[in-house]
Amino acid sequence: MEQFGLSGPTKEQVEFFQDAPFFRRRIIFAHRDLDVIIDAIRSGREYAVLTGIKPTGDYHMGTFQTVKEFVYFQRKSPQAIAVFSIADIEAWEDNGISFEESKKIAISNVSDLLAAGLDLERAYIYFQSKEIRVHELAALAARGITLATMRAVYGERHMGLYLSALVQIGDILLPQHPDLGGPKPTLVPVGIDQDPHLRLTRDVASKLKPKWGFVEPASTYHLIIRSLLGDKKMSKRDPMSYISLRDDESLVRKKILNAFTGGRETAQLQRELGGEPWKCVVYEIAKFHLYADKDEELEKIYRECVAGERLCGECKMQILEDLIEEMKEHERRRIEVLPTARQIVERAWNRQPLYTASSGGA
Amino acid sequence: MEQFGLSGPTKEQVEFFQDAPFFRRRIIFAHRDLDVIIDAIRSGREYAVLTGIKPTGDYHMGTFQTVKEFVYFQRKSPQAIAVFSIADIEAWEDNGISFEESKKIAISNVSDLLAAGLDLERAYIYFQSKEIRVHELAALAARGITLATMRAVYGERHMGLYLSALVQIGDILLPQHPDLGGPKPTLVPVGIDQDPHLRLTRDVASKLKPKWGFVEPASTYHLIIRSLLGDKKMSKRDPMSYISLRDDESLVRKKILNAFTGGRETAQLQRELGGEPWKCVVYEIAKFHLYADKDEELEKIYRECVAGERLCGECKMQILEDLIEEMKEHERRRIEVLPTARQIVERAWNRQPLYTASSGGA
Repeated sequence: MEQFGLSGPTKEQVEFFQDAPFFRRRIIFAHRDLDVIIDAIRSGREYAVLTGIKPTGDYHMGTFQTVKEFVYFQRKSPQAIAVFSIADIEAWEDNGISFEESKKIAISNVSDLLAAGLDLERAYIYFQSKEIRVHELAALAARGITLATMRAVYGERHMGLYLSALVQIGDILLPQHPDLGGPKPTLVPVGIDQDPHLRLTRDVASKLKPKWGFVEPASTYHLIIRSLLGDKKMSKRDPMSYISLRDDESLVRKKILNAFTGGRETAQLQRELGGEPWKCVVYEIAKFHLYADKDEELEKIYRECVAGERLCGECKMQILEDLIEEMKEHERRRIEVLPTARQIVERAWNRQPLYTASSGGA
Repeated sequence: MEQFGLSGPTKEQVEFFQDAPFFRRRIIFAHRDLDVIIDAIRSGREYAVLTGIKPTGDYHMGTFQTVKEFVYFQRKSPQAIAVFSIADIEAWEDNGISFEESKKIAISNVSDLLAAGLDLERAYIYFQSKEIRVHELAALAARGITLATMRAVYGERHMGLYLSALVQIGDILLPQHPDLGGPKPTLVPVGIDQDPHLRLTRDVASKLKPKWGFVEPASTYHLIIRSLLGDKKMSKRDPMSYISLRDDESLVRKKILNAFTGGRETAQLQRELGGEPWKCVVYEIAKFHLYADKDEELEKIYRECVAGERLCGECKMQILEDLIEEMKEHERRRIEVLPTARQIVERAWNRQPLYTASSGGA
C-alpha cells in the first residue's frame, strides 16, 4: 500500500464516516486522498463521486457494493454531485455487446441504482457512446501516454481495449469538465484491482493541471466479496458464483444452501472447535449487505460461530431469510422507480441529460 | 498500385469527369472504386464526399488541392452530401494545439472552403472533439484492431496518435451513420500517402458490414505538389516551401521568383536544349491551380518551354501575375463569406450543426 501511496483509513476517518457500515466494518480498507473529500464535506464545498457499470448483465452482490458506496458518498453532503457512466463502449470492446444491447441491460442497472437511493436532483447518468465530453477528455489524456505505459497498466491488448481505457480516464475526469462546473474534488470508489487505472488517471490529471486546473481524483478501495464457491471473486461468467439482484427466491435459496462456509467437517467438531467465519462466504454476504444498522447482530453471528454455538445449517437459514427480506424490499423499491429508470436511459441514449449538475449546464 | 488494388483512371472515367482540370491533367492518377461513385452520379443516388483539415495553419497550394476536389465532387451531383472534419483532436495529439486554438484557425480554413464554392445546403462541417457520432464509430472500429496492425499502418507511436487514427476512421464512416442517412457510397479524395489509412478503414467497414451495412469507402489519389524549393512536398514547417492562401502579394512574388524551375544553367543553353517543365515547380503550380478552363494556355507554356522559346524569367512573371489575380479573386470571395464561416465554426463548436444532410437529422 505504501509503495503506491495508499493508506488505510484512520480512526478519525472511520469515525467521520461511521454512518456507513462499510467503513465501520472495514470493507473499505484503503484510500487515496480521502481527506480531500472529508474537507469538502466539512466545509460545504462541491465535490463529485463517480462510478459506472459495464452493462453486460445485472448487478450482483459483488458489483452492487460499489453502488452502495456511490449513493452513500452522494447523500453524505448536499454539495455532492453523482456522475454515473454506462460503459457501453467497454461492453463492446471487451465483450462484443452492441450499444443497443447495452441500452436494454442498462435499464435494469439504472433501476438498481435508483432503488439504492440515488438523489436524481444531483446526478448525471450517461452512455459512453453518447457523451462527447468524455471523448474530448479522453483525447486530451491520450497525448503523451506511451504504448509502454499502456502495456504496463493494461497488458498487451487490442486497440479496442486501449481505447476503452482512455474513455474510462475521460469518465473519471468528466465531473471536472467545464460543462459540469469545472475542477472539483472527485471520489471514485472501486475495488483494489482498479488501482493501476486510477494511478494513470491521476498522472494525466496532474499533467493537464496547468491548463485545466484538474484535481487528482481521490479513491476508496473495498474488499472484493468472494465467490459463493469460496475461491475467486464473484464472476458474471459463472452464475453459481454469485447472487444476482434479479435472482428469484428459490434460486437464492439454492445458491446460499450450496455456498461455501467456514464450518467444520462434522457438527460435533464444529461444536468443539468453533467455526471459521473469516472463511465463510455466507458470513461475508451478511457483512457486506445485511444488518446495516445492527452491527450487534453481525457480531453475535461471528461470536456464536467462533464459540461453536452456531452451526452452518441454522446460520444459513437465518441469513438466507434476512437476505431474501432485504432483496424483496429492494425489489419493491426498484419496481416503483423502473419507469423513471426507463426514462433516464432513453434520454441519455438521445443525448438529453435529464438531470443536471447544480453548477453545470450538462 | 495493383498490389494494393488501386487503378489509374480509365479514358472513360477521365471523360466522365472532363469538367475537372485535375482529371484532364492527370493530377488524380489513381483511385479505388471510383465507378461506385460514377454509378451513383449517373443514377441520381445519394453519395458522400469527405475530407477534413488539421487546423494547424492556413491552407497552402498543396493542401488546398483536396478542397478543390472536395467541392467538385459535391457539385457534380445534386444528390451528393459533403462532410468536412475539422481535425482538432489530430491537431492536439500531433502538434499540441489546443482545441481553442484549433477553433480560431478553423475560421480561416472554413472561409477558404466556402470561397472554393461549397454548397452549404448539402454540407456538414464539424469538430472532431464535438461530434459524438465520430467517437461512436471509432469505438465500433477499434474492436479487434490489433497493436500489430496499428504499428504496421502508423508506426510505433504514442496513444494520442493511435487514438487520432481511430477518430479519423470515425470521420470516414460518419457519412454512413444512421443520423446522416445511413449507408451510402463515400468518396475520400486524398494524397497517396493516406492510402494505408484508407485500406484499414475499408477493412473496418467490411467487418462491420453485416450489422451496419457500411459501404467500403472509395478514394481518389492526387499527385503531391512539390516544395517551391524543388525537393519534398510543401511543408507547413518551412514557409518558403509553400504559398499560403493568406500570403500577401509581395510575399508570393518573393516566393515565386525564388522558386525552383526546370531551367538550364544559362539562357543560351536553355534556348539550345529547351527547359524541363516536368522538373519545374512554377509550372506545377500553374498545372494545379491556374487556367482551369484554358488547357491550351498550359499546353502552350509547356511547349514553348521544351522548345527553348520561353525563358524562366518571363515565364515566372506571367504565371506570377495570373496566380496573384487568381488569389485576389479567391480572397474577394473569401472576405464575403467570412461572417458565414465564423457562424459555422461557432455553431459546430457548440454542437449545433447549421446545415444538415438531406436525408439525415445531424
